[in-house]
Amino acid sequence: MKNTRSAKKKRVVRRVRAKAKAPRPIEVLVKRLNEIAYLSSAGVLLGWDQDVHMPEKGADARSVTAAHLASVVHTKLLALDEGGLLARLKRKADRGELRGKGATIVQETWRTWQRQKKLPSAFVAQRAQTESRAHRVWLEARRTSDFKLFLPHLRQIVELKREEARLVGYKDSPYDALLDTYEPGFTTAAATVILNELKDFLIPFLKELKSSKVKVDPKRTLGHFPLSEQRVFNEMIAKKMGFDFAAGRLDEAVHPSTITLHHSDVRITTRYREGDLLYSLGSTIHETGHALYEQSLPSEHFGTPLGEAVSFGVHESQSRLWENNIGKSDAFWRYFYPRLQRVFPRPFKSISRHDLIRTINQVKPSLIRTEADEVTYNLHIILRFEIEREMVEGTIALEDIPAIWRAKMREYLGIEVGSDREGALQDVHWSAGCIGYFPTYALGNIYAAQLSRAMHRAIPDLDLRIAKGDLATPREWLRKHVHIHGKTYEAASLIKRATGEYPTSRAFTDYLSEKYRALYL
Amino acid sequence: MKNTRSAKKKRVVRRVRAKAKAPRPIEVLVKRLNEIAYLSSAGVLLGWDQDVHMPEKGADARSVTAAHLASVVHTKLLALDEGGLLARLKRKADRGELRGKGATIVQETWRTWQRQKKLPSAFVAQRAQTESRAHRVWLEARRTSDFKLFLPHLRQIVELKREEARLVGYKDSPYDALLDTYEPGFTTAAATVILNELKDFLIPFLKELKSSKVKVDPKRTLGHFPLSEQRVFNEMIAKKMGFDFAAGRLDEAVHPSTITLHHSDVRITTRYREGDLLYSLGSTIHETGHALYEQSLPSEHFGTPLGEAVSFGVHESQSRLWENNIGKSDAFWRYFYPRLQRVFPRPFKSISRHDLIRTINQVKPSLIRTEADEVTYNLHIILRFEIEREMVEGTIALEDIPAIWRAKMREYLGIEVGSDREGALQDVHWSAGCIGYFPTYALGNIYAAQLSRAMHRAIPDLDLRIAKGDLATPREWLRKHVHIHGKTYEAASLIKRATGEYPTSRAFTDYLSEKYRALYL
Repeated sequence: MKNTRSAKKKRVVRRVRAKAKAPRPIEVLVKRLNEIAYLSSAGVLLGWDQDVHMPEKGADARSVTAAHLASVVHTKLLALDEGGLLARLKRKADRGELRGKGATIVQETWRTWQRQKKLPSAFVAQRAQTESRAHRVWLEARRTSDFKLFLPHLRQIVELKREEARLVGYKDSPYDALLDTYEPGFTTAAATVILNELKDFLIPFLKELKSSKVKVDPKRTLGHFPLSEQRVFNEMIAKKMGFDFAAGRLDEAVHPSTITLHHSDVRITTRYREGDLLYSLGSTIHETGHALYEQSLPSEHFGTPLGEAVSFGVHESQSRLWENNIGKSDAFWRYFYPRLQRVFPRPFKSISRHDLIRTINQVKPSLIRTEADEVTYNLHIILRFEIEREMVEGTIALEDIPAIWRAKMREYLGIEVGSDREGALQDVHWSAGCIGYFPTYALGNIYAAQLSRAMHRAIPDLDLRIAKGDLATPREWLRKHVHIHGKTYEAASLIKRATGEYPTSRAFTDYLSEKYRALYL
Repeated sequence: MKNTRSAKKKRVVRRVRAKAKAPRPIEVLVKRLNEIAYLSSAGVLLGWDQDVHMPEKGADARSVTAAHLASVVHTKLLALDEGGLLARLKRKADRGELRGKGATIVQETWRTWQRQKKLPSAFVAQRAQTESRAHRVWLEARRTSDFKLFLPHLRQIVELKREEARLVGYKDSPYDALLDTYEPGFTTAAATVILNELKDFLIPFLKELKSSKVKVDPKRTLGHFPLSEQRVFNEMIAKKMGFDFAAGRLDEAVHPSTITLHHSDVRITTRYREGDLLYSLGSTIHETGHALYEQSLPSEHFGTPLGEAVSFGVHESQSRLWENNIGKSDAFWRYFYPRLQRVFPRPFKSISRHDLIRTINQVKPSLIRTEADEVTYNLHIILRFEIEREMVEGTIALEDIPAIWRAKMREYLGIEVGSDREGALQDVHWSAGCIGYFPTYALGNIYAAQLSRAMHRAIPDLDLRIAKGDLATPREWLRKHVHIHGKTYEAASLIKRATGEYPTSRAFTDYLSEKYRALYL
């Protein structure tokens, strides 16, 4: 090309125009985040299908596909900073030149990216493949109650988690690095304090409740409930809670869960027992609580931190608030019990609402966490937390876990574990590599109690409304105070803004005291 | 590091060892192909889920996810040659320095790669997104029989297909470039010759059959067949044919299909009508024929051409051979009819096997291709081929398609099209961007007749075996002569090896003449 003055001028003009048309750096970042989110949702579908539909022999290929896709996503995550984009935006946000939503996106993305940057692609692929295989073996080990079958896979997972902590870095305990994935800023030390506080309240309170003279016979609520009718009833409750079935599904799987491909495609799984209607209801209400959060996150921010839940603890607060604070309340059943009695007259016509309420709020130490009542539930969490912390810190031998599990169940809940399928094999988490996740369940209960109290103070006739079947009022309150903000605030700030108080276990222990003393003491 | 002689020596040794351990170029290529195949299978799952499970509002996000994934796969496909690997292997194969399986892998990969290399990533992403949206609109347009609703989407697809042909390159017609995707080496000119030959046989033969005095009343086979029982019966037949349910599924969708995530995860969809048992059976047998091919491809070669079907025509030969040559034969029903009569005594107890055979082989011009009998079926194909060739060559206006469709249906089959859902909107193909696909259906029928004749000559008592419920014999013959070879041979060579003859329509027209003259003339 001839380098004439005219050509030079043209090039300058072109450059200026290109600059004027070029997307702003924050837009480029959002575009990159979007691509990652959409690709990740293909991975979410792989996982959902594995639980719900995949034929048995497809498992090996599935784990390879999941690993390859995870590796692609990981590579794209690392490339977020391509051209120094993210670092430049981070400096701008730190200097206050980028504010508001843009700053939130940048700061949160920076945090995640920093963490991921430290994990080599090969490590991420290996982790995905190991977890996918371990999950399959766990299903079989759980079925046959064979901890030894699962042990080598657990060992691989724990090794990978320790390696992950080492790569990510931590101050006090490698467990800190794992916790941080689920509840940003939360530490092993803080978890130990809160869970010990809870333990100090719960063990004597449980003993007190055990002395109750009130007798409950949950067998009275058993019967024969055809699965097709149970499905319809569960769907009706989810719908009434506000779950949008045009933007989601309700299916069956071994472990109830909620997964999100997009805010417009949120999938719940629950589980049924033909003889026990109440078994499915709790899970369905719980998962619908999660799903409402996902469906209400601002869709226009999908893929960015503004379109994501604050933390696992806050997520769990939504499911637990619906499952327990609302779903096990008298107000809720004032509306739903007559409807349930119409569909399932036997045995419910002969059981009063008051008796039903006592039954669903029965406090009874049990083996399975997901079936535990509100009082004993956190003791299950404490047990898992204590074991997995030591697992990761390397202070116990993995083959001893079933024995340790048995000893702690005896000490905290006073019950004996029969087989490992009712013990160390009962939960999906470890097989899925989710170590550090359990403490967020306790936080969920704590936040839920605070949010429920604040909501009742703000809407004095809330229970009356719920008793009339108006579940839109609590849903909209939660939407306004929690859902629509995405990750704009950290968990502690969000709870403070919504309830006037920073996270404290007081609301929860007050709630337990008041409710269970009224029912049983 | 100090550069002493000893250190140098160590480095040299290390280099030699590294070289000794380095994977061979063909192994690197296979590894790359594997990654592509596993990632593609995530895309296959996205499509299957869209048809079978996806909630309505999830469609937009799904099309974006599909587009992003397609773009990732496309990028990896282009990168197959990274470092000149593929070109180097191609030269080796051409010079005969690489032979056997390795050569097949390289030559076939080269062919696909050459084609893909010509399509920019942005084009591939746009195509995937357009097709995903069009598919959704088509479902709605078909439901409401509203061609105009679908028209703008069809226009986009045709434009993209013309662009694709332009990018890929072609000699005579842009349609050549599209055909080549489905039946490598096949041309528009060849398709025109074969389909005109068939048309010349079929139109007079159909007239002859219309003069038959034999009366068939298909309404006699209607009744009430609960879907749950139909599902069980369909599964039983698929199982008997050899479909491995531990490595696959059978579900329901608008359009029956077979998709493969991996040879260990092959999924069939079929469709049911409560009043018409025979409606589902044909589809299920057809799709199971496809699925047996997929499940029998050599698993150790997954991802490479050796683990892939030869062509769409050969694939269709497997489904049609099972659906028609076997599934509509007297031998087949000698075994299955008593079983069907036991499960569905009404109305089948009062219908003789001979009458059933006549009913399922009734020749009657009809509106819906997938319900057409063996004689009229290819006239449907000819109609679509003629329209889509002109669509792509730009010699018809797309808004005229419903009218052209009506005119051709009148001319070839002598029937009137009522609404477009029974006309131009009936098939999924165009909405999925599968233009150039239809002619392979006719080839499938031709190959099937050749294979069936060869199999009967090789196994003289084949019909006796089938009549005893032994479907393993034909399945194993097909496995040996077709399935296990993957893409080792091109369609024409494979048919020659298996049957002794290159592809010819003679076996098919002989088969039709013989079978239908015996039944009706």
